[in-house]
Amino acid sequence: MVLTIVGLGLSDERDITVKGLEEVKNANFVYLEAYTAVLGVGPQKLEEFFGKKILEADRTLVEQGSDEMLERALTSNVAFLVVGDPFCATTHADLYLRARKKNVTVKVIHNASIMNAIGACGLQLYRFGETVSIPFFEESWRPDSFYEKIKKNKDAGFHTLCLLDIKTKEQTVENMMRGRQIYEPPRFMSVQTAIRQLLEIEDKRGGNVCLRDAKAFGVARIGAASQQITSGTLEELLSVDFGSPLHSLVICAPTLHEVETEFFDLFHAKGETAPAS
Amino acid sequence: MVLTIVGLGLSDERDITVKGLEEVKNANFVYLEAYTAVLGVGPQKLEEFFGKKILEADRTLVEQGSDEMLERALTSNVAFLVVGDPFCATTHADLYLRARKKNVTVKVIHNASIMNAIGACGLQLYRFGETVSIPFFEESWRPDSFYEKIKKNKDAGFHTLCLLDIKTKEQTVENMMRGRQIYEPPRFMSVQTAIRQLLEIEDKRGGNVCLRDAKAFGVARIGAASQQITSGTLEELLSVDFGSPLHSLVICAPTLHEVETEFFDLFHAKGETAPAS
Repeated sequence: MVLTIVGLGLSDERDITVKGLEEVKNANFVYLEAYTAVLGVGPQKLEEFFGKKILEADRTLVEQGSDEMLERALTSNVAFLVVGDPFCATTHADLYLRARKKNVTVKVIHNASIMNAIGACGLQLYRFGETVSIPFFEESWRPDSFYEKIKKNKDAGFHTLCLLDIKTKEQTVENMMRGRQIYEPPRFMSVQTAIRQLLEIEDKRGGNVCLRDAKAFGVARIGAASQQITSGTLEELLSVDFGSPLHSLVICAPTLHEVETEFFDLFHAKGETAPAS
Repeated sequence: MVLTIVGLGLSDERDITVKGLEEVKNANFVYLEAYTAVLGVGPQKLEEFFGKKILEADRTLVEQGSDEMLERALTSNVAFLVVGDPFCATTHADLYLRARKKNVTVKVIHNASIMNAIGACGLQLYRFGETVSIPFFEESWRPDSFYEKIKKNKDAGFHTLCLLDIKTKEQTVENMMRGRQIYEPPRFMSVQTAIRQLLEIEDKRGGNVCLRDAKAFGVARIGAASQQITSGTLEELLSVDFGSPLHSLVICAPTLHEVETEFFDLFHAKGETAPAS
């Protein structure tokens, strides 16, 4: 009789909160949203740990076909699992509104998301400006609106968290046109690709926003035992291999505070790994 | 042999993650930092739930006297519990650095903090600018640097999260001078007090930053069953009782996106309560 949106946190099945786990155990139906972000473990691992069957919810289900899920929540307990925190993606805020409109009772179990866990790099969270998303450049589609946003943050003295593109369950144009349910392998943007795209735009626009000597932090698999945090100039980070996904990038504000500078030095391009758990 | 900084999340003993709980169970010593934020439950409740004795760490211990804790972490497992996420307060980043300098292995267990859970009000997290702290005004100390920061965010089209002052274990000047270990009862700033202070500064400075008709969200006890989220103008929110702590305030960007407007209307000054858990 309730839809509980449960944040799973960042890395694996044990990042769920005790409260969230209780909600999952009490649920009659458990859905997993797995297209805006992914954990380091697959749905099977979650099923084993929760002792529950998990229904995978793709973009189509969440954005258009969630009626079945919301109907069920009127008469039974439904848990909707999302990576990170329930409200970090706009699409979940939208689901929340649709549920309320259908008179579904909605509960929310919060958890860590990259939006706050990025603090692990040592930059002070309160000094971050607008978060930007960097999409994969395609042959004929190279959007660069994030460049202006990074500039705006920089001018205001803010850091910028850059979320890097994830493509899960994408179709080729041909397969889409022909209505074939064939999907490409998932792709996750690396720190290196993000920097290459930023430098390409910098070269084109020349706004001195993302110069090769700009300070930045590359992070990978935050919250996992294999977590990696490395600082350096964009030029330096171009040659750092951050390994498997998910990656994020932070472009630093023009000046760093004292403690921030200490963290920058601690994690400076030595492939330093900050163990998480 | 390791210092694990464990985020407790926002509300009660069951907001800890499964991973965090395992670390607490494995710890030889468990410290609780309880002066930058507080849960809705006291240390006793945590002790019962964890089945562990908890040592309370006040500001003095964390900022100056943490040597004992760090020494212990060289030869045994120490869990350092913090409300919210480990890196949301500068003081914990500083502790992390001091631990690393002493060659203490440090692990971090992330959790929700107000910095990301504020998304529960429906404003999009990526559109928040710099976070500000509003301190209690005293007779002769009425700092207003947060006013300029809210202005800067507003000019850039960002929302501003205002963290409201907490006074735990404060001494009167007289008791401090006389070296008496007598502490005042804890004080937590309410949404109403924060707004009164903001309007006072607006009246004084006249920068059109926090006018009475500015849109805002007051939130209280985010993540708790008694969570309250109410939107309105600053004028409207002045007459809303948000109940027991902790409270936070969001000053909205000059324009709201479509989904944000829907949330503003949903929570608009009807004392609407968004059930959490």
